[in-house]
Amino acid sequence: MTQRRTHTGRRPGPNTTKALIEDTARKLFAELGYERTSLRQVGLQAGVDPMLVTHYFGGKRDLFLAVVELPFDPGAVFEAVLTGDHDSAGTRLATLVLSILDDDVRRRPLLGLVRAATAEPEAAALVRDFLTRNIVTPIAAQLGGEDADYRATLVMSQIMGFTLTRYVLRLHPLADHDRQALTADLGGTLQRYLFGELTP
Amino acid sequence: MTQRRTHTGRRPGPNTTKALIEDTARKLFAELGYERTSLRQVGLQAGVDPMLVTHYFGGKRDLFLAVVELPFDPGAVFEAVLTGDHDSAGTRLATLVLSILDDDVRRRPLLGLVRAATAEPEAAALVRDFLTRNIVTPIAAQLGGEDADYRATLVMSQIMGFTLTRYVLRLHPLADHDRQALTADLGGTLQRYLFGELTP
Repeated sequence: MTQRRTHTGRRPGPNTTKALIEDTARKLFAELGYERTSLRQVGLQAGVDPMLVTHYFGGKRDLFLAVVELPFDPGAVFEAVLTGDHDSAGTRLATLVLSILDDDVRRRPLLGLVRAATAEPEAAALVRDFLTRNIVTPIAAQLGGEDADYRATLVMSQIMGFTLTRYVLRLHPLADHDRQALTADLGGTLQRYLFGELTP
Repeated sequence: MTQRRTHTGRRPGPNTTKALIEDTARKLFAELGYERTSLRQVGLQAGVDPMLVTHYFGGKRDLFLAVVELPFDPGAVFEAVLTGDHDSAGTRLATLVLSILDDDVRRRPLLGLVRAATAEPEAAALVRDFLTRNIVTPIAAQLGGEDADYRATLVMSQIMGFTLTRYVLRLHPLADHDRQALTADLGGTLQRYLFGELTP
């Protein structure tokens, strides 16, 4: 059941309506994925006129980017993964990445981001800001050093490509390769990008 | 000027019309890119009813995948890059990849493939077949060995991620990093995927 009125019994004001739409959209995107969620559905389930969804958020991509949440807390996770033994950090990060992406539900927001990014230049800019804030900057903060941002974007490039190849394109045999072997092979690349020798 | 009739002066038959649409689409996709090309435009420029384009090819993605051509000859290029000194093969491949992707025109079909792949599951299957046939298999043929296909898909994962991060998302500082340094850093990863030690 959807709450259509505030507890005071009055008609919800604009802020409440907006929040209601956001909650509903977050839930539907998580349950159905990006493609199968429509603005109309979000409006209907939130109990508001679907036109209001468009009024507040514009298109589906804007709504998605307004409500998308990573399936982990970036600050805490990258601190946990990147502090401790340097030599095994790449493997720890690969283990984390695969555990999220191999989970049908947890990988949805990440696939949604890849889809949104490739669809239109304006969406790409929004996704870029989101990924910079939530992934590149927290990883770079753990690394420190002059080339920390560059290293973090190299890490992103391999993770994004891995997501695209294994989960979107489902390119064989990467798509069904043994997870443990894959973790080690991906981990080697991430290790080099995080702490290895790069070109000065 | 577009040829609307065959040299015999008769109305073009279905095969000629289809070929005409394909030629026009190839040209427009190359000139304007995937997004700015419309089925209507292709029809108008080919001098045929735009409905015929839909009739022969369905949607824009289908038309794109019917006419897309890589901006290089995969068999020849991968043979040239992957035979010769093993130790520098990764750098040679990275040099090739960057020379194509840093070229505004030559990268268009590749960006179109990434866009088509992420848009819909059915398009992803078509792109998967295309990439397998034109990139994964030719690379694997040069590598030989039991894990050649797996290695080739790992290579694809880094190249796709690199394309997405540097050219679609334009994630800073990867997007404007010095090309020579980037070639070396990307080359190290490709080298490992091609000929390095992987998990058995």
